[in-house]
Amino acid sequence: MALILKTDIYRGNAWHDAFARFLPDVPVRDWDNPGKLEDIEYALVWAPEKGVLATFPNLKAIFSVGAGFDHLTVDPDLPEGVPIVRMVEPGLTAGMIEFVVMSALYHHRFMLDYARQQREKVWHEIEQIPTFRRRVGILGLGVLGAACAQKLRGFDFKVAGWSRQPKDYEGIESFHGADGLIPFLNRSDILVCLLPLTPETEGILNAETFAALPQGAALISAGRGGHVVEADLLAALDSGQIGGATLDVFREEPLPPDSAFWTHPRVVVVPHIASMTIAETASEAVAANIRRIQAGQAPLHVVDLKRGY
Amino acid sequence: MALILKTDIYRGNAWHDAFARFLPDVPVRDWDNPGKLEDIEYALVWAPEKGVLATFPNLKAIFSVGAGFDHLTVDPDLPEGVPIVRMVEPGLTAGMIEFVVMSALYHHRFMLDYARQQREKVWHEIEQIPTFRRRVGILGLGVLGAACAQKLRGFDFKVAGWSRQPKDYEGIESFHGADGLIPFLNRSDILVCLLPLTPETEGILNAETFAALPQGAALISAGRGGHVVEADLLAALDSGQIGGATLDVFREEPLPPDSAFWTHPRVVVVPHIASMTIAETASEAVAANIRRIQAGQAPLHVVDLKRGY
Repeated sequence: MALILKTDIYRGNAWHDAFARFLPDVPVRDWDNPGKLEDIEYALVWAPEKGVLATFPNLKAIFSVGAGFDHLTVDPDLPEGVPIVRMVEPGLTAGMIEFVVMSALYHHRFMLDYARQQREKVWHEIEQIPTFRRRVGILGLGVLGAACAQKLRGFDFKVAGWSRQPKDYEGIESFHGADGLIPFLNRSDILVCLLPLTPETEGILNAETFAALPQGAALISAGRGGHVVEADLLAALDSGQIGGATLDVFREEPLPPDSAFWTHPRVVVVPHIASMTIAETASEAVAANIRRIQAGQAPLHVVDLKRGY
Repeated sequence: MALILKTDIYRGNAWHDAFARFLPDVPVRDWDNPGKLEDIEYALVWAPEKGVLATFPNLKAIFSVGAGFDHLTVDPDLPEGVPIVRMVEPGLTAGMIEFVVMSALYHHRFMLDYARQQREKVWHEIEQIPTFRRRVGILGLGVLGAACAQKLRGFDFKVAGWSRQPKDYEGIESFHGADGLIPFLNRSDILVCLLPLTPETEGILNAETFAALPQGAALISAGRGGHVVEADLLAALDSGQIGGATLDVFREEPLPPDSAFWTHPRVVVVPHIASMTIAETASEAVAANIRRIQAGQAPLHVVDLKRGY
């Protein structure tokens, strides 16, 4: 029995230290030094090379290091019947709450305008709008979206969410399905995308959906780059239909140097850092899930590959 | 009986509309058209011309439009014995919470570094620090400071406050008095100033106090410009002792065009907008206080001029 790690975009040592604490009886192996392949029962991985997971004959679960698992399903040889578990851990959720609340407040408080004023040395007070008249809309009310919605509600924003199925969170207006999308966008002054990337959500942020937003709405894109039709977003920014955007994810990452987003005065670009899995909190969550499997239970947060999330 | 308004930096109509709703039996007069001076029993003012308040012989209370009242005490003819009431109203508190939380998260999440990376088209992930290892310190635990402290605590930051007297808020470490200042600064990675401006707090943010902070600490200055020794702050920014600053208030406002803060790459300048009194919520609070006076009670939130806040 062993757990193999491919967590190279994070800190290898932090993971080893944390698993030594939370899962002391399970040997932990590094991706580049797997030992006997028969031993590997669990894999905690980010963007593994295609075909490698299929070489572990006794694999019981594949844990994604991040909230998304599109880095796994691109593998045509992904072993069938082995559950894929998305990362749900308090550090990742907390980080996304921080990023979304910070960015929503940034647009709510006209900070792009104040940044321009600072560049131009202009001292001018913009009349503030109270949060109870600012409508935030969250695309995707999964673990991360619901947590962000509730935190924003705590600032007295008017918060709504859009998801495939209706959701019931206190104080959060629920829109759902294809029919609910346009009414949801019509009332969203600040739009936050935290959807999973599926064939249905690919390109969901496009000229048509931007046009359904109130004029000058802000966009916070922290799901996947594939949600955004980038040319449409640039056009909406240039026309003023979108008044400002915080973009964490892109079609191509790293964002190419010739992308117009880098230099657009109404765009904040960050390098896919909205939230990161924290080794010490995530390893505890993964360890608990491995304990479930060892006890004969199904792991939590298994991906439904047919549904796409 | 009448209430006179000098609220010119805000929206006159919004105040009139709100007082018509919350205080329909009290005539509201504009500063430039006061009518019979004997009628004026209440004044709600921002930066009134010196000597004018003394011309109202029946004045019972002076309400400041903002949280500070230094704009009143500069008047050598301020009528004696008339209580000065600072503004405590939910809109002002909510706005300060928004600004402080946004700014704390901005520095916590390395957004000044990411802004530089955006300018340089650099895609580089900076390892995130969890909030539970980030120490925020709030100078001033009055109404605004305590509200900000509690909201930051809700993000799992390690929060402490410093005030003249010890305070007891759950989860907020309390430091107080001259002896408590340096230990408080020693543990503050993000320092927020929400102090009142008094002879004791004038210039409190200076070379000595900056040196007591952890290297690279962030400063959020949203009290009064007089708290900051500006040359010392620039030196601390240039040396890296202060890693970044969000400055809302300045010694001279509007900030002069030749101020180095405008162009400093580690400084966010905003034009004294951290929080604004909201007419509709503030007029309700002022109306309630006028009702107290009419009922023979002392108004709430009266300033202690000797103590200075």
